[in-house]
Amino acid sequence: MIYLDNAATTQISDDVIKAMVPYFSEKFGNPSSIYSFGSNVNKVIEESRNIIAQIIGANPKEIIFTSGGTESNNLAIIGIAQEIHKKDSKKNHIITTKIEHPSVLNTFKHLESIGFSVDYLDVDSDGVVDVEQLKDLVTENTIFVSVMHANNEIGTIEPIEKIGSFLASLKHRVYFHVDAVQTYTKVPIDVKKANIDLLSISSHKIHGPKGVGALFVKKGVSLKPLMFGGPQERSMRPGTENVSGILGFSKASEIAFKDMEKNNKHMISLRNKLIDSIEKNISDVILNGAKGDMRLSNNVNISFKYVEGESLLLYLEMEDIFVSTASACSSKKLEPSHVLLAIGRPHEFAHGAIRFTLSKYTTTEEISKLLDILPPIVKKLRDMSSIDKDTDMTKFKETDEHV
Amino acid sequence: MIYLDNAATTQISDDVIKAMVPYFSEKFGNPSSIYSFGSNVNKVIEESRNIIAQIIGANPKEIIFTSGGTESNNLAIIGIAQEIHKKDSKKNHIITTKIEHPSVLNTFKHLESIGFSVDYLDVDSDGVVDVEQLKDLVTENTIFVSVMHANNEIGTIEPIEKIGSFLASLKHRVYFHVDAVQTYTKVPIDVKKANIDLLSISSHKIHGPKGVGALFVKKGVSLKPLMFGGPQERSMRPGTENVSGILGFSKASEIAFKDMEKNNKHMISLRNKLIDSIEKNISDVILNGAKGDMRLSNNVNISFKYVEGESLLLYLEMEDIFVSTASACSSKKLEPSHVLLAIGRPHEFAHGAIRFTLSKYTTTEEISKLLDILPPIVKKLRDMSSIDKDTDMTKFKETDEHV
Repeated sequence: MIYLDNAATTQISDDVIKAMVPYFSEKFGNPSSIYSFGSNVNKVIEESRNIIAQIIGANPKEIIFTSGGTESNNLAIIGIAQEIHKKDSKKNHIITTKIEHPSVLNTFKHLESIGFSVDYLDVDSDGVVDVEQLKDLVTENTIFVSVMHANNEIGTIEPIEKIGSFLASLKHRVYFHVDAVQTYTKVPIDVKKANIDLLSISSHKIHGPKGVGALFVKKGVSLKPLMFGGPQERSMRPGTENVSGILGFSKASEIAFKDMEKNNKHMISLRNKLIDSIEKNISDVILNGAKGDMRLSNNVNISFKYVEGESLLLYLEMEDIFVSTASACSSKKLEPSHVLLAIGRPHEFAHGAIRFTLSKYTTTEEISKLLDILPPIVKKLRDMSSIDKDTDMTKFKETDEHV
Repeated sequence: MIYLDNAATTQISDDVIKAMVPYFSEKFGNPSSIYSFGSNVNKVIEESRNIIAQIIGANPKEIIFTSGGTESNNLAIIGIAQEIHKKDSKKNHIITTKIEHPSVLNTFKHLESIGFSVDYLDVDSDGVVDVEQLKDLVTENTIFVSVMHANNEIGTIEPIEKIGSFLASLKHRVYFHVDAVQTYTKVPIDVKKANIDLLSISSHKIHGPKGVGALFVKKGVSLKPLMFGGPQERSMRPGTENVSGILGFSKASEIAFKDMEKNNKHMISLRNKLIDSIEKNISDVILNGAKGDMRLSNNVNISFKYVEGESLLLYLEMEDIFVSTASACSSKKLEPSHVLLAIGRPHEFAHGAIRFTLSKYTTTEEISKLLDILPPIVKKLRDMSSIDKDTDMTKFKETDEHV
């Protein structure tokens, strides 16, 4: 198997599994218990908080564990919007971009539906957010701005530091939320230097377990919680802690952070090889997203003209190569990607996009094999497509019924 | 170690761990992916949904996976209150009991703070909810009623079927939510027969992993979600699924349901031995909660007069016996239990309460050892307490600083 969908999810490292298992079996205490068998487990949570805080330049008390990136984004966005609006009802304006992950975009749509005023920033043809437009849109009633650190589909890294520094220069307080799910332990970040108030991260994108994530909440920033219950996570996120998940997340963070430079070098070399060879050997292709340093180390997203992405995906699957058409979260839908439309790709190009996302485990041999297989498949699909376009459309309808 | 705090959390069965591990390592795909390596993982989620649905008499489509009991309770309560109130603003009345878990009580307090009108039902001295009072309080504006299936502190089983049948007999629709976290796979339940619309359950109370739970949502009942994002869990609970957690939960459910009768027989025998011996051999004790069939099979809660519960807990800890003073969720606080106050225990009795909660792994030898150790410890503490009451209070303050 050649797994090239690491932006969707990743394989857990053996070291991470080994660290987690004792907290299922012999060390199963409830961290809220006052006896040592429970409070020792609580220490593991605090150590994990410490590890993650150090990686992003935060204080351990500023880390809230959640059930994943989606919850982190929701808690940040709904939490700050409601908290500030409650204190000052004039404040009702919030800003994000057109290319955010569904867990940000749909949360903004929810806030819009209950009366908040929303602006969605444009991006250029590389997917870079328009900072000048942001400057024009911010008013005294703006509560916060949410911009992803790097896009999950096309891998473009956004000018977070520039945005943070602009927001920090304003006379009125405008909070700054960053969805760093795709960049955490790939692109270095210092929440203090970047003037970030809220930062979302997730475990299963970095070879940690699914079902756990975290939200950095800057000291002094208060949020209205999404849920109510026990006093866990300073009452911002109640419920018995997912101890093994939290430990697995911190272990995966530690490993990924230690090897960040090495892994990036490895992935960038394979990424560039993949992009260069496809551009050289296959006609009518367009790279989606920025080039070079402004692109995530593990992301390749290419539109193959005259090809339906889903068909290409299925042909690659027959060769045991796993890739993605859009983000996994919306991959069962047939709508063209909102990200590709935002960077100005026409529908036919947006439909022909394939995302290859690498990991530290991806090998040169795997990329070479893919590069051997890809050109004849694309040719075959283009030949078929010129004969009978309806065949493929039937296939999509079948896929859609699984939803 | 003698672990008698199984209402707080439980040890995961080896069979459950064994089932989970492959979904960390080789079967790590994202269930939302359209290729087989992802969609095969999705099948595991659907099989898990099916197993859990069967246990409570539901349809698999009526099961929503969550991050745990707290999220299930919040989603049910906030979700139904907001959904119905949005459609008909006159509807603003909600009812629960005085003895619910903090994840229900604090969610009601939140709704109260944003304008909902709340009634908290009384309970009798055994902790049984006053159904006649409920009948008097329900009006045309009542949205829903939330009553726990069994209390987590004192183990009293509530007359859920009676309440469900009353609510179903009303001319106007009043929804019924049941927090079944403590009873799931211990007390049989059929959501259809009991006229339940929403039922919360949790994995880590039944020898499954922490960080996963589920909410039964009756067909046709719509909820306002707590979070927004991808289309997972019919958009009622977005975010990449905690696959290994969900599988572990369903595996634990399967095992617990299969052995329910056997486990209950075993635990009831030990529970009764524990209660009878304490009542016989230690003076000035009161059993908190109902007796016999109206009591959870694994719960013993006893107030030792003239003793502080925390001191008794710490003395038992020195003997490697782990028990609880109140629910783990509020166990770091020094407030007397709201449940014990609701059943009419005076403060001094409420402070002297110890909860022993058994599991299928609890042995006769463990209970015998506890019964040997307990009387001299209680005597010692009572002797100390008559000499210097201040000593213990200092100890509490130290404990409190950990919070």
